[in-house]
Amino acid sequence: MEKTVQTKEMVRITTPDEMRRFIRKQKEKGKTIGFVPTMGFLHEGHLSLFRKAAETSDCVVASIFVNPTQFNDRDDYLAYPHDLMRDAHLAEEAGVQALFLPEEKTVYPNGNEVTVTIHAKTDVLCGKSRPGHFNGVATVLAKLFNIIRPDSVYFGMKDAQQAAIVSSMIQAFHFPIRLITCPIVREPDGLAMSSRNARLNPAERKEAAVLSRGLQAGLAAIKAGERDFDAIVQSVRSYYTVHLKLGEVEYIDVLNYPELKRRGASLSGRFIIACAVRYSHARLIDNVTGTAESVSEPG
Amino acid sequence: MEKTVQTKEMVRITTPDEMRRFIRKQKEKGKTIGFVPTMGFLHEGHLSLFRKAAETSDCVVASIFVNPTQFNDRDDYLAYPHDLMRDAHLAEEAGVQALFLPEEKTVYPNGNEVTVTIHAKTDVLCGKSRPGHFNGVATVLAKLFNIIRPDSVYFGMKDAQQAAIVSSMIQAFHFPIRLITCPIVREPDGLAMSSRNARLNPAERKEAAVLSRGLQAGLAAIKAGERDFDAIVQSVRSYYTVHLKLGEVEYIDVLNYPELKRRGASLSGRFIIACAVRYSHARLIDNVTGTAESVSEPG
Repeated sequence: MEKTVQTKEMVRITTPDEMRRFIRKQKEKGKTIGFVPTMGFLHEGHLSLFRKAAETSDCVVASIFVNPTQFNDRDDYLAYPHDLMRDAHLAEEAGVQALFLPEEKTVYPNGNEVTVTIHAKTDVLCGKSRPGHFNGVATVLAKLFNIIRPDSVYFGMKDAQQAAIVSSMIQAFHFPIRLITCPIVREPDGLAMSSRNARLNPAERKEAAVLSRGLQAGLAAIKAGERDFDAIVQSVRSYYTVHLKLGEVEYIDVLNYPELKRRGASLSGRFIIACAVRYSHARLIDNVTGTAESVSEPG
Repeated sequence: MEKTVQTKEMVRITTPDEMRRFIRKQKEKGKTIGFVPTMGFLHEGHLSLFRKAAETSDCVVASIFVNPTQFNDRDDYLAYPHDLMRDAHLAEEAGVQALFLPEEKTVYPNGNEVTVTIHAKTDVLCGKSRPGHFNGVATVLAKLFNIIRPDSVYFGMKDAQQAAIVSSMIQAFHFPIRLITCPIVREPDGLAMSSRNARLNPAERKEAAVLSRGLQAGLAAIKAGERDFDAIVQSVRSYYTVHLKLGEVEYIDVLNYPELKRRGASLSGRFIIACAVRYSHARLIDNVTGTAESVSEPG
């Protein structure tokens, strides 16, 4: 008797109706749906989300949609890199069973007539320099969540502020969805994977490893017993002052996570050390999260 | 053999988890869910929605939740009438199978951290005097839609602007929900049913029949061939000037429906004539909708 080889070819879907039919079929088979929203130009960070989804959900759906409403800068939107052929291949290899590729007019049938507004966690970190960015993210996710109706969604901790805000939205709007966050995936030199890394010139790319090293300096300060928020920020800043020549620091901050506030006068509980650095054609972000109590070595 | 009598006792549910379990059971039986959101103090208008839902859906869920975020006036919120015992009886009689009675902290677990913002259709009619009202309505509905996940939702045309805005939200956020609007239910003298009618004193109650008669005057003008928006408004205003002594007109307007704009220089297509009138302890609204072409009698 011949062995039956089951090939699971990834389907590409462009309309909400078609996506709903696909999802309905999966649910009729009793399968759980894991969803990974992306803007494409996939890298190992995205693939780690797909793989996590494939491990923990029966059926993995990914979307590629460069969402115009989350860009503050028209040039950044227009320059956002894309390579659909490559993305589709990588997604399929990583276990994605349906790739959702909707058009803008499908996602926004009545333009910006109705949006989601986030009133907390947006006045810090990236929210400061990107007004409306997280409203755009939340709005497109509300749409995608309703089209795909996943059981679980997967977000990378690279965008830690985004993950915290998506968690707030899921809670506020009672989406029956489990949020699963996955660790940052890094290049061998420590640079956090990002689609925007492709826009660094060779000298900038070489220097960019400094971002994560600066955050490690902040972490080292906490390990050494430092609990003053500003002093921890200063330890990161000092590192960048010495080692960053091409990049310009936009922010460095230490906050409690996921509230994104400084909870007390000194650091305790779960925290994030986060930074944004501007290069000539790319704005990079990075962060480390931990718990004050667990990173400390006994004095 | 004894005849099996199936009694369908209405269940009262207070938590999202319990509601989800109820809905899951219904869906496993292949039943469609019809949902009627209300703020309670039920009248024939609500009951007409329940009955329509019972006709067109297998399982009718109603909610009673006096939503704080849609009140502009704290006193109006606090004075909103309620009678849960009576409501529960009426709902059950009208075919409701599950009554959702959530607490405020359940509906708003993180306060107003995440809301829906409506950017169109809100600068006219009730939107003018009730800033943020429709954002509050849309926000609570997004929550309820995600908890109940109905196939159909039922709204009364008494709140025609609300129905138009809910339709926009359903489209924008891709809720897989059918919106069914039901005609205004009126008292024998023409007064549109409203929970707020209970706050009229006897003299005001008697006069309030004038509201719908004024709208009929506007309709008569259209029937007579009038197509100028302002002239139609004026025909309603003239009627109120003569017949309204106790009530104070907040607005009278004629717009295309459901866009809630004046589509051209003169009236064509579907329209709404709408008004709001203030009495000592109640603000009443009313409207008529029609199609310019169909209401006209041949000249």
